[in-house]
Amino acid sequence: MNRKLIVRVLGALMMIEAAAMIPALIVSLVYRDGDTMPLVYSFLLVLSAGAMMTFLPRTGNNTHLRLMEGYIITAVGWIVLGLCGTLPFLLSSSFTRFEDAFFETVSGLTTTGASVLTRFEGFPRGVMFWRATTHWIGGMGVLVLTLALLPKLTGRTSHLVRAESPGPSLSKLVPKTGATAKILYRIYILLTALEFVILMLCGLNPYDAALHALATAGTGGFSNYGSSIAAFNNLPVEIVITVFMFMFGINFALYYKCLIGDGLRAFAKDEEFRWYFAIFAGFILIITLINLPCYDGDFWTSLRYGSFQISSIMSTTGFVTADYSKWPAASHVIILLAMLIGACAGSTAGGIKVIRVNMLCKLSGRNIRSASQPKKVSVIRVDGKAVDENILSQVAQFAFMYIALVLIGGFVMAAFSNYDLVTSLTASLTCVSNVGPGLGAVGPVDNFAGYGLVGKLTASFLMLFGRLELLPMFILFNRSTWLKN
Amino acid sequence: MNRKLIVRVLGALMMIEAAAMIPALIVSLVYRDGDTMPLVYSFLLVLSAGAMMTFLPRTGNNTHLRLMEGYIITAVGWIVLGLCGTLPFLLSSSFTRFEDAFFETVSGLTTTGASVLTRFEGFPRGVMFWRATTHWIGGMGVLVLTLALLPKLTGRTSHLVRAESPGPSLSKLVPKTGATAKILYRIYILLTALEFVILMLCGLNPYDAALHALATAGTGGFSNYGSSIAAFNNLPVEIVITVFMFMFGINFALYYKCLIGDGLRAFAKDEEFRWYFAIFAGFILIITLINLPCYDGDFWTSLRYGSFQISSIMSTTGFVTADYSKWPAASHVIILLAMLIGACAGSTAGGIKVIRVNMLCKLSGRNIRSASQPKKVSVIRVDGKAVDENILSQVAQFAFMYIALVLIGGFVMAAFSNYDLVTSLTASLTCVSNVGPGLGAVGPVDNFAGYGLVGKLTASFLMLFGRLELLPMFILFNRSTWLKN
Repeated sequence: MNRKLIVRVLGALMMIEAAAMIPALIVSLVYRDGDTMPLVYSFLLVLSAGAMMTFLPRTGNNTHLRLMEGYIITAVGWIVLGLCGTLPFLLSSSFTRFEDAFFETVSGLTTTGASVLTRFEGFPRGVMFWRATTHWIGGMGVLVLTLALLPKLTGRTSHLVRAESPGPSLSKLVPKTGATAKILYRIYILLTALEFVILMLCGLNPYDAALHALATAGTGGFSNYGSSIAAFNNLPVEIVITVFMFMFGINFALYYKCLIGDGLRAFAKDEEFRWYFAIFAGFILIITLINLPCYDGDFWTSLRYGSFQISSIMSTTGFVTADYSKWPAASHVIILLAMLIGACAGSTAGGIKVIRVNMLCKLSGRNIRSASQPKKVSVIRVDGKAVDENILSQVAQFAFMYIALVLIGGFVMAAFSNYDLVTSLTASLTCVSNVGPGLGAVGPVDNFAGYGLVGKLTASFLMLFGRLELLPMFILFNRSTWLKN
Repeated sequence: MNRKLIVRVLGALMMIEAAAMIPALIVSLVYRDGDTMPLVYSFLLVLSAGAMMTFLPRTGNNTHLRLMEGYIITAVGWIVLGLCGTLPFLLSSSFTRFEDAFFETVSGLTTTGASVLTRFEGFPRGVMFWRATTHWIGGMGVLVLTLALLPKLTGRTSHLVRAESPGPSLSKLVPKTGATAKILYRIYILLTALEFVILMLCGLNPYDAALHALATAGTGGFSNYGSSIAAFNNLPVEIVITVFMFMFGINFALYYKCLIGDGLRAFAKDEEFRWYFAIFAGFILIITLINLPCYDGDFWTSLRYGSFQISSIMSTTGFVTADYSKWPAASHVIILLAMLIGACAGSTAGGIKVIRVNMLCKLSGRNIRSASQPKKVSVIRVDGKAVDENILSQVAQFAFMYIALVLIGGFVMAAFSNYDLVTSLTASLTCVSNVGPGLGAVGPVDNFAGYGLVGKLTASFLMLFGRLELLPMFILFNRSTWLKN
């Protein structure tokens, strides 16, 4: 294993994380929250450590990165970023226990948005901004950013992207990985800025608008209010965030195709988008009807809360405007399905992803049809193109591993707490799918503060497993990875 | 489609069902329960209808049965048997509503053991015996019985077996399907008789012993006591039933191999059995330790209740001796896992089956390992033999369809009741896996009596989907099956 190169890449990641602390530092200075120095120290510590790791080792000409090393860097990289990101929380004493700070940072970076924060008032504004920033840098993957900025560091970089980017395949828009990443980032920045401006127009102050725009863009869900978006009680804000959460769940490549000339046809032509939209609209309709009795039969109120919550959960953001734990059980099943499915590949969202669910449904259909015509070989197509049988097989295995991880995670969460079955299983699911809230004691008006050390660390790692789509973390923790190298 | 032949086979099935009513009729006469005539009428009605269907149509030489027709016969056959089996319940007014009688019959035939019965005392003994008999005839598949007795009726019969028998592949012990079925049935009868005798030796009266032996053999779970096996409060009985539930979850082919000379090595050599035993023992150990606080730290009491409940749930029988809904949440996760996994293929049990879980785990392992050696092609072996990639792919798809069905079933169960999420989802799971009890309002001390018409019918069909391992029912309800034929 090319350890020196791995250390260099990790160092570069840390320098980027340090740079990402600068906006929080500025916010702290502007609002004079009195907790600027912890941010300065964090910045300097992470920057200098990263610089030493990047520039001290001499890799010589060996800049070759094998596929497995790509997975290892990805897994270790996210853990290191999670560790370094705790510094602003710990140095400012916003959190006094390491596991709390680690949980909050990993939850931010993985764009989960689950929290252990119990004290929102008086929380330093700079550190709170850092909390929201972790969503944004985690959203599109810090490593893709690395590739966009440092394509010279390693010879072959597509392995890294392959290991980290969401979804079964990365559609390369332009031949060079670095160039693709730059395009995606411009779209990301553009959409975030757009949401920021619109939220300002809806009457939010610049701080709230920026913070929620960052959290929406990463499909994260951290808010600086304990009651999340419900705190604003502002219908235009809810509508804007509903729409943007949905938008950040779309494959970013479609925005590029839209901009370079395809227009709205780029979306209409894309099968995953059509499924995403259909599931999204179907879920909203079903849940609006089921919830009618909760809202005294008022369709529009039910639609208002139903659409926000479905958009939030399906895009795996995790903002809330309603205590959906009081909704009927049938709505809870829809919420569980939305958590499992998630949004589109190539977006900032988590979950199994719509494209995989699409393939799984088609596989099931073929299974049923083939009974009447056992000899007919039928090919499964997505966007009109035949999908390789190996990919189909891997997708089915992915779904199995995903659900197995949720169940095993649920067992650990239950074994190391006094919570009930629903709490334990949805805590695991919401972490693996990077949503944020679950049901029961981790429902929309509660959070993970009640868990102990083991529960919080388990949840943190479930988030990492989910964010990296399982494989990199499994490889990191697999004994044979280390025996053979 | 060869409709005439299908009608003939269905008629034969009904005649067998009529014959299966005779023991209940005798029980009714012996105990003079005053409800003999409903059983006589049921017997005559089903027998004469079956005879007409079998002997009136002239099929001529066309006795060819296509694979798809095998699936259709299987699906329709089980529904017809469920309908005819309601007669003793309805004619004796044991149930006054059709959906109750249909639920109870389907639950019996699919060896689920979920009940809507609320009045156990004073229930006619003959009809109660018929209830237990449905488990036994459902256990090994009425159709396999048909094949054993009527191999002349259809030219090719292996399609029927393939569509119905549990597990991914039927291991043929001898070249002829009919002969294999006869061997399996002899083992089945032998083990049932053995359990009957041992239960008598433990002090049960002949009626209770026979009834519980039939219900154990089919891994069903109907008891004539509202509190199930707990009613006896008899440790030897609990141990005997624990062991027999485990034994009826083993692939019956292993007993044959054991008897013809392999001895106990037949079990030790079989990979699925080794996994089954390991999961079984592991679950018991974990649950015994987790439940210690519920039993004041008494290891043996915890082991007593833990092992009975795990044996009952993993073999998908559904007898209970403890109210496991009061156990900690971590035990509930283990119970859910046991419900999902089930026991061995080729047994009377339900669930995804251990052999499939074995393959899925190996697939996941290969997925993880292949990251470090992407070019190495590795074969997955079971019992030392390479497994075809198509089968592996189908197994992964099966698991997806299984879980999707549980979730969709849970949605319907929730939408048409006022029960909570846990009740709805476990009601669906326990039906699809043919276990019997679930958690919440369908927990070990409750049953399905609280559901309405839609809930009971949905549950009945979920049991049928699960018992036939999904495909036959999906094919029956698939539009394209009927368009093309």
